[in-house]
Amino acid sequence: MAQNIYDDPAFFAAYTQLRRQVIGLDGAPEWPTVRAMLPPRLAGMRVLDLGCGFGWFSRWARQNGAASVLGIDLSENMVARARAMTSDDAIEYRIADLDHLDLDENAFDLAHSSLALHYIVDFDRLTRTIHRALNAGGHFVFTIEHPIFMAPKRPGWSVDSDGRRTWPISDYSREGSRTTDWLRKGVVKYHRTLATTLNTLLRQGFTICQVEEFAPTPAQVAAEPELAAEIERPAFLMVSARR
Amino acid sequence: MAQNIYDDPAFFAAYTQLRRQVIGLDGAPEWPTVRAMLPPRLAGMRVLDLGCGFGWFSRWARQNGAASVLGIDLSENMVARARAMTSDDAIEYRIADLDHLDLDENAFDLAHSSLALHYIVDFDRLTRTIHRALNAGGHFVFTIEHPIFMAPKRPGWSVDSDGRRTWPISDYSREGSRTTDWLRKGVVKYHRTLATTLNTLLRQGFTICQVEEFAPTPAQVAAEPELAAEIERPAFLMVSARR
Repeated sequence: MAQNIYDDPAFFAAYTQLRRQVIGLDGAPEWPTVRAMLPPRLAGMRVLDLGCGFGWFSRWARQNGAASVLGIDLSENMVARARAMTSDDAIEYRIADLDHLDLDENAFDLAHSSLALHYIVDFDRLTRTIHRALNAGGHFVFTIEHPIFMAPKRPGWSVDSDGRRTWPISDYSREGSRTTDWLRKGVVKYHRTLATTLNTLLRQGFTICQVEEFAPTPAQVAAEPELAAEIERPAFLMVSARR
Repeated sequence: MAQNIYDDPAFFAAYTQLRRQVIGLDGAPEWPTVRAMLPPRLAGMRVLDLGCGFGWFSRWARQNGAASVLGIDLSENMVARARAMTSDDAIEYRIADLDHLDLDENAFDLAHSSLALHYIVDFDRLTRTIHRALNAGGHFVFTIEHPIFMAPKRPGWSVDSDGRRTWPISDYSREGSRTTDWLRKGVVKYHRTLATTLNTLLRQGFTICQVEEFAPTPAQVAAEPELAAEIERPAFLMVSARR
């Protein structure tokens, strides 16, 4: 199963301070790109939100016409917070491990996941579960940490002899766990190559619709200068697929 | 138009000594992967080979049942050599710049390209041309230098403080020309992100079938130890798509 880092008190305390948790979707620089990859109208859709966190996307989907939303997260802390922030009988939050998830067939029109699937051990099983759970033509839109970002066993920026910032890649084709320090020590994630991610979707019967790699706009860099580094190497991979 | 580096005498002399030019397809470590991405039977197919070089793939396609092959290359040197190596009326070689290529509609069942399209300025135009030139259901299988390999404006291996080999990435989201030294100084290629490559295909109407990133097998590393570096970062991206 995936590591339940979000129920570690120190991690959770730090996580709640992230801009994207404090102000929600508009605090995530990749959100405009993700939004453009979603179906243009959510009206009447049954939505699944995998790794729902505080429920920001779940509530947004309802505000944009979704008929119902099921948000799933491994963390009791996250789901408790999501429930406290939500007042809507058409949104259900459930605690479950995505590595062992079972879902009804043809139960959803849109599956969404934001920065959760890189915690998953068995992406093949989860993809098969999502494919079954979507109706024909259903959408699957997700973001994960980019394999360029994930690959190095000891990730971090480097500065070359001319003072230019680089992101040294290694271990790209060595898939599997990566233990890194983010908000606390020993966070376990799983690196998969881009080919593995896409071919897993294709093998389960998904059609790839769009692939994006986050890079900030000039306006975003002006507002948040530290985002400039993301031009050097993408941290987020975004995929839109259809059953 | 693309730089015609292959008609530079010094470059051409060095190029002809590459293992993949001396012994052909079996000298290319990625060939087993590419072969598995091609349609299982070429019988009767009209094949297009973009950047045909010495015609190794063109001849292989005919030996495997293709009805006809049109090989296209910018380089007079390459096409002259291909013609000298070929004795088959069903193979035509043509000198043309892929950046200004025109092709008949519905004229091919398979378009193939090996390590040529990263020399192209206008991938969008070429992709549209190929899409029109394929019949419905036609295959497009190509390899290019991987965007991880292409991105840095000053590419090269680095060794970190622990002696581990890394490939420092930078400039990933800055698409455009890259001038590097390979066989001679000043070779001009064009970096596109993975998202741009895939979305260009999708926008022109292609369906993505398979994406691969070259990594050597243990047997390949045992035979050619210098291939081990390719495990750290992929040099080749391979895509299979269908109209």
